[in-house]
Amino acid sequence: MQGTPPSQQRPADTYPPTERTVPTRSPGRAAYDKELVHAILDEGYVCHLGFVRDGAPVVLPTLYGRVGERLYVHGSTGSRPLRAAGRAAADGLPVCLTVTHVDGLVLARSAFHHSINYRSVVVHGPAYDVTDPEEKRRALDALVDHVVPGRAADSRPANNKELAATAVIRLDLDEVSAKLRTGGVNDEPEDLGLPHWAGVVPLRKGYDAPLADPELAPGTRLPDYLAPR
Amino acid sequence: MQGTPPSQQRPADTYPPTERTVPTRSPGRAAYDKELVHAILDEGYVCHLGFVRDGAPVVLPTLYGRVGERLYVHGSTGSRPLRAAGRAAADGLPVCLTVTHVDGLVLARSAFHHSINYRSVVVHGPAYDVTDPEEKRRALDALVDHVVPGRAADSRPANNKELAATAVIRLDLDEVSAKLRTGGVNDEPEDLGLPHWAGVVPLRKGYDAPLADPELAPGTRLPDYLAPR
Repeated sequence: MQGTPPSQQRPADTYPPTERTVPTRSPGRAAYDKELVHAILDEGYVCHLGFVRDGAPVVLPTLYGRVGERLYVHGSTGSRPLRAAGRAAADGLPVCLTVTHVDGLVLARSAFHHSINYRSVVVHGPAYDVTDPEEKRRALDALVDHVVPGRAADSRPANNKELAATAVIRLDLDEVSAKLRTGGVNDEPEDLGLPHWAGVVPLRKGYDAPLADPELAPGTRLPDYLAPR
Repeated sequence: MQGTPPSQQRPADTYPPTERTVPTRSPGRAAYDKELVHAILDEGYVCHLGFVRDGAPVVLPTLYGRVGERLYVHGSTGSRPLRAAGRAAADGLPVCLTVTHVDGLVLARSAFHHSINYRSVVVHGPAYDVTDPEEKRRALDALVDHVVPGRAADSRPANNKELAATAVIRLDLDEVSAKLRTGGVNDEPEDLGLPHWAGVVPLRKGYDAPLADPELAPGTRLPDYLAPR
């Protein structure tokens, strides 16, 4: 864990830990700092959304977007979790939304100490069907801007037919934790002399050259927000 | 979906679809081909493991490994899902294990048709505590080889103390589906003339230069399995 120790943070900067956001293992890797949570969420492309169906867990990858302290997930009005949230109405559908970045592979001399450098956020709470048209539009903009910041303003907005075909659910950032592993190898002192290579293999980030649609309107140029980085 | 149509595949090559592995939306993106499922699973670093705790879903990122038609997840003997699987004993703990690769960002002219190119596998089923010492050792080798193929043989195996501190659960590949989105932009014909750039932005794969541990034993060289690719 990095940054200011929890005891020195103001309550407004952090999510209050709850019984289910305090891990039983490696509690030192858990963090509740809002800025850190937002940064991890904003860097992801898909979340893994968990819900319970007929008593069994279901975990599906899906796009998401953030507006302040609210997360939005969208989908067809026919998709299972979105229908279930609609049925749950004012009670909300209990969900768990998780976003994970794998930053590096940690290769230790011992099999036991192999690990992954990662940053993850886990959000628990009820998901609500978004019915207000204005909130729904803002959520859809956030979903597009989440894929590429600035993109919503540079695309045709959804029309009424598209809006009607899209369901959106909202999950508030109340019960939230981040978990991180950073740094190098933690081998046992007696293993340091072993002849196995040890270290961290960073995973590549960013994107390769964009592939333009073959039917771009004449004169359409690659926008600045897709410039190589 | 790519490859041989389901109707021409032999049953032994595919997982039989079940009510919960046939999606309600975009069924054409679902696939049950074992080779494809194995390839998606083997390419991942972490899975998202879902289970139910006090009636609510929990989704945690974790390492995994595959041995044939069995997946293994490990963790401390004190971690919640592993303890729960131990308590469930012969009944198994109902879990859902999902692996997702984001391959590209699909930028359409319309906000509505923005999407992601991805490949995912969802596995449903009971997870069992692995108690057989030989199966546990094979599972731990698979977990290390999953991070970097060939690595288990090039590291110190777990000793008895480490084995005792590690819990392993098994999930059989019975109720399994893959889901994929590939290809380009699917804009409405009337939107093709809009001035917005459209296309696919491929995400970067592979890894950057490995960072050696500062205390490597003298003469330890970077192994071939970490050569740049």
